[in-house]
This record gives sequence, C-alpha cells and structure tokens, in this order.
Amino acid sequence: MNLSDSQPSGWQFSQRALKLTSSAIREILKVTERPEVISFAGGLPSPATFPAEPMREAAGRVLRDAPGAALQYSATEGYLPLREWIAARYGVRVGQVLVTTGSQQALDLLGKALIDPGSPVLVETPTYLGALQSFSLYEPSYVQVPTDGHGLLPESLTPALTQGARFLYAQPNFQNPTGRRLPIERRRALAAFAQGSPFPVIEDDPYGALNYAGEPLPTLLSMAPDHIVHLGTFSKVLAPGLRIGYIVAPEALHFKLVQAKQATDLHTPTLTQRIAFEVVKDGLLDRHIPEIRQLYSAQCDTMLDALARHMPEGVRWNRPEGGMFIWVELPAHIDSLQLLDAAIARNVAFVPGAPFFAGSAPSNTLRLSFVTVPPAKIEEGVAKLGQLLRERL
Amino acid sequence: MNLSDSQPSGWQFSQRALKLTSSAIREILKVTERPEVISFAGGLPSPATFPAEPMREAAGRVLRDAPGAALQYSATEGYLPLREWIAARYGVRVGQVLVTTGSQQALDLLGKALIDPGSPVLVETPTYLGALQSFSLYEPSYVQVPTDGHGLLPESLTPALTQGARFLYAQPNFQNPTGRRLPIERRRALAAFAQGSPFPVIEDDPYGALNYAGEPLPTLLSMAPDHIVHLGTFSKVLAPGLRIGYIVAPEALHFKLVQAKQATDLHTPTLTQRIAFEVVKDGLLDRHIPEIRQLYSAQCDTMLDALARHMPEGVRWNRPEGGMFIWVELPAHIDSLQLLDAAIARNVAFVPGAPFFAGSAPSNTLRLSFVTVPPAKIEEGVAKLGQLLRERL
Repeated sequence: MNLSDSQPSGWQFSQRALKLTSSAIREILKVTERPEVISFAGGLPSPATFPAEPMREAAGRVLRDAPGAALQYSATEGYLPLREWIAARYGVRVGQVLVTTGSQQALDLLGKALIDPGSPVLVETPTYLGALQSFSLYEPSYVQVPTDGHGLLPESLTPALTQGARFLYAQPNFQNPTGRRLPIERRRALAAFAQGSPFPVIEDDPYGALNYAGEPLPTLLSMAPDHIVHLGTFSKVLAPGLRIGYIVAPEALHFKLVQAKQATDLHTPTLTQRIAFEVVKDGLLDRHIPEIRQLYSAQCDTMLDALARHMPEGVRWNRPEGGMFIWVELPAHIDSLQLLDAAIARNVAFVPGAPFFAGSAPSNTLRLSFVTVPPAKIEEGVAKLGQLLRERL
Repeated sequence: MNLSDSQPSGWQFSQRALKLTSSAIREILKVTERPEVISFAGGLPSPATFPAEPMREAAGRVLRDAPGAALQYSATEGYLPLREWIAARYGVRVGQVLVTTGSQQALDLLGKALIDPGSPVLVETPTYLGALQSFSLYEPSYVQVPTDGHGLLPESLTPALTQGARFLYAQPNFQNPTGRRLPIERRRALAAFAQGSPFPVIEDDPYGALNYAGEPLPTLLSMAPDHIVHLGTFSKVLAPGLRIGYIVAPEALHFKLVQAKQATDLHTPTLTQRIAFEVVKDGLLDRHIPEIRQLYSAQCDTMLDALARHMPEGVRWNRPEGGMFIWVELPAHIDSLQLLDAAIARNVAFVPGAPFFAGSAPSNTLRLSFVTVPPAKIEEGVAKLGQLLRERL
C-alpha cells in the first residue's frame, strides 16, 4: 500500500503496521475523557489507592542517597534488589526475574521471542485486548480455547487444538475482560497440561492480589514452576504511572527476553525501579493491598446492587470475586457497539466485548469497570444504562 | 531449532529470537564492571553531570502537587506539556512529537512501523550498534552507505544503492562510534536527497547538544522538516536513567508509531516525564548543557593528548568536535578483538569496531569513550593501551 495521500513522500509502512488499524472504540472512548461522562470503560485504578506520601518520601530518599546510580543507565535485567524482592515473594531464582516497562512490555517481549508469522497462539475466549494488540505485531495465527462462566476449559486442550502452538496465554485471576477466576481443579489440570506440553503456558496475573474474600487461589507458577511463564505488575497494587512489571521465566527463555529487551528499550527506568523498591521493601504492600481490596470490593458491591435494581430482564452478568471488571451479556439481538453510541450520547461509557475475542465474537457483550468511578456515580451510570436497555427491549 | 538442552520442555523460539546471539563483546565487557578496570568501553555519561538536586526538588514537587496524575496511566503520545516543550524547541507541531522510553525504543518502533523481512535499510559505515540490534529484530537487509573521515557521502546515494529502501538511518552529529560530524555541505545534500526520496531519512541526534566549539550545525530536520524523522533524547543532557527520548515525525508516521507504542509499553512512565518537564521547563538545560560541554571537552582533550604521547606510529584517530567518542584505526594486521582480551588482562577496556558494521567490517578499529573515566585514569589507561600496542608492533 502506498500512503502518498497522507505522507508527503509516500513512505512505505511494514505489513504489520498496515494491520494496525485505528480502533473504532479507541476513537469513541476519547470522548469519555470529558468530565461529564461516567466512564465504566477504563481499567484505571482509583488514584485514591496510590500511596502518594510513601512514594514522595522514597523518591526524595533515592535522589538524595544515590542520585548518581538512580539517574544512570542500568542493567537490562532490572534493579537487582527489586529482582531479589520479587524472587523472594514468588520463591523463584533471581535469575528468572526480568523487570519490564509495565506488563504490556512483557507481552511485546514474549511476542518477539516466541512468535513467527503464522505461529499458532492459544488464547482464552474472550482474552485480554492488550495482549492481542502486542502479539498481533508478530502476526500469529490465533486459536481460541473454549471457556465457560468459570474460565478456560482444560479438557478442551486436545492435541488437535494445540498442535504447533508457541504458547497458551491465560489470565487465571479475575480475567480482563470477564472478571472470571479459574477454579482450583482447573488450575491443577492446566498446570499438569503445562508440565506435559512442548510449549509454555503464560500466566498473566495483574489482578491476583485483588481477591475480595477468602484466600487467594494458588498460581499456576507455584504448581508447575519450570513450565509456566508468570507475568506480574505493580500497576494495580502500587501505581500504573511507574510502568513496572516483571516476567518470571525459566532461565533459557529469560536470557532471550533480556536480549530482546536490550534491543527494545535498553532497560526500564532506573529511577522508578529504585522508588518502587524503596516503597515495597519494608512491607508496604502487605498493609496497602487490603485497603485497595476493601475499596474495590465495596465499589463492586455497589455496581452489582445497581445492576440488580436497574437492568431489565434478559440481561446477565457475573459476580466477580476480585479484580476490576464485570462482564455483561445482553439479549442476543442487542449490539453493544450500537449501544455504546447511544450511551455516550447520555454521558455513560463502557467497552463493547467483541474486540476481546481473537476470532468470531458475539456482538451482545460488554465490560464494566467498577474501580474508577465513585459509588454515587456508579449508581447513576448503571441507572442510565438500564433505562437505555429498557427502551430497546 | 529445538532447545531441549536448556529449556525443560523444548520450547520453540521465534526465528528472530534465534538470531539474537549472545554478543562476545557483551560477555567480555561484563568484567569491565570490576572497579579496577579502566573502561573506555561504556557510553555512560558522567554522573557528575546529572542535576541531582533539581531532579530531587522536581520529584518532590510533582508527587506533592499532582500525585494522582503523576502515578496514573497516561497518554501513549506522552505528557502534553513535555511534548509542547519539545515541539517549541524544534519549531514543529506538537502532533509530530511522540515521547519514547529512551531513544532505543524509538528505534524499535521505527523497526516495527517500517521494516518487513528482507526490506532494504540503509545505514552508515560504520553505524550505531544499538540501532542494528533494534532493526535486526524485524529482519531487514542492510545496505552500507559509503563514508569517509567526515561521515556519510551523499553522492553515493544512487538509485542503484537506495532501490526499495524503507529508510536511511544516520547520526549526523558526533556519530556513535566514530565521533564524526557531518559537514554543512553534506547536510544540505542529504536534506535535498530526503526531499526527493520515496523513503524517510532518520536523523538520530543524541549528541547534538554536545558540540565543544563554535555553533552547532543545523539539523537535517530544520532543512527538510517534512522529510526527516528526528530522534532526540534527554539521556545525554539530563540523565539516562529516566529513559526519556522522543521522535519528531510527520503526522501519518507519528500515528502509526503511536499505535505501535501502545502495543509495546502503553506509554512511557508518567512520573519520569513529569519530573523531566519540571526540570527543563524553566531553562535548566540552557544553563546545564554548557557545563557538560566544558567537562567532556576537557576530558576529550586529555584523551587526545594521551593518545598523542602514548600511541605508537601507525595508529590513527580522529579529533572529535563534540560527543563522547574517539575512533581509532590500528595498523591493518592488529585485530582489535584480540587486543581487547589482552587489554582486559591489564584492566583496560574499549569496544572493538567490527560490531558497528552492518556488513563486511575491518578488524583493526576500536571505539574509545572519554566521558566516564576521570582525567588521571584516562592518562593511565591510554598509556597501558599504547604499551600493549608497542609490544605487538
């Protein structure tokens, strides 16, 4: 394709760049930045949960005690004390830990290291949109793994389905977009599958700490340490603006990921890594995460309560046990993309479900986030959505 | 290739990842981290140039006045006031400016947006090793553009050489590794070439501010604003540990780069962008850069003086007018990689020249950095290298 229309000199883009289409949703959602819009669309953590004062103190300490090191280039693998802290938290070797510029970069590096054009890549149905965006730059052939209301169905991972796959990508905890948590029996089955599989299972776990009741379920990593690639992040439990995530992987893959990262951004900013370490090293997360859980859990209850009162018959949704999202299924004839247009006209926003599917997608699903909007606005926004739906039924 | 030797389950890597070989140099240079080694290898700015106190104040201000915003997700394009500051400095439209996670990420994004497997990519002879690493992940076919002691030869850019190229990558100012600065007449010729070319010229300019005498030469961007993609960074004039670079590009390419960046790391950390803006907005760089120039210029003179006194006949080097590097040519029969082994045994290090060539490379060149090592150690290290060479001649 020649881009002489828009580019002064008709510069030629790569095939992968030509496939990067402007998301209709992204354009629509730009309007949700207007302050009058009640947006259930974003996955933005509530700024009320950011430990601003400890961060300010940590930044001051780092830049007073070690400015030369904090402002200098540093190792591609990440800041060693932070890697050691992560390794200890997971009970893994420090040589398995790579600090990434947010979890999104982990997805890009895994695409770089593992995907050739046309490689089969297994994903949940639906799956995380941001992962599809990252992987797609490396032009895989997606295979959708069947799911039900509790997540991925391990028995569906037959040789016929998984033949030639480079990896299986999954979010067992409070999946984005569905909020589903994979039950313990399925975790055991998936870990066993990973142990016998010629490709890794990638366990993306941004929301694992945000369980609202009872004990967290064990990670796949803890069940099959040498066969799982585990992705974590400080974005949901500390602050996303730091852009600090990490990959726990067996050393051979770790080494390839380090080489790929060196070519990608040399290293994650030294300053933010040191600030994050200063903040977490004395156990702040153990005090802080329960506060986040309590806040989000209450907002989740508010939204569930509002849905029960305002949604007309025929609309279904799940009751998340953690995380940030509720997944809604509308009656089959209602298109959630069209509904979004109408909702935005009334200053309410959400994300339609279709873009979260790697292949064929139903048009009647949507994702609601309950973490960004305060409770009174949750009630108001859900009431408006309910009214809109009643008008259409 | 099956990796069952090292990977528990024989996981298959991508073709591009298999080509990521462990650099012999990288392994050797790990030993240069020993404190007793005088390393002319690294391109690390002197920590003495980091404005630690203004950074500490800026970090405190940002985290006191706007913690919610500074710690939150933010726009892929970058922090708007910082983009406006950059746009004003270059006299370009803010819509052309994308903030990147260091300049290294700019190279990765350009590879993503412009290179298909086998695409011809034009590079200088030699060229920046880090650019080769980034671009190579997208599997281009490199074409080496002839150079002389003053850099790229514009008259060599014939239709036969440039046929089908996706871009020409150049560092006109104090190139890494040679330290060469492209003369004004060649800049004019290269800008004219860009204006008539069906592909962009990428002007990577990390060292432009570090000119040691006289006026800086005009950028290619200033000569052909719609036909140049300009890369800049705060790493050499502020602090590399922030990982803040930027791309100035025509809007159509800018838009593709934004989409690619969204899939790559969502956005550059909000906190570091806001700190950088706080530090530079009141003109700190205009006061600070002359101090860096003075320090590096003196260290450059120290190294040139030491080379003149210690190098045996037959060794040649250039006199850089700025930047961080001196390029050394040894007598033809001396292999700089072998010399490095011997030098490290005597606790001196440098980077051999061969890895900076995209194709056939001479074995008798090397790069010396004069910015990291203090003057007394420069003298001692160069004396040791001179002694080593005398033993071999």
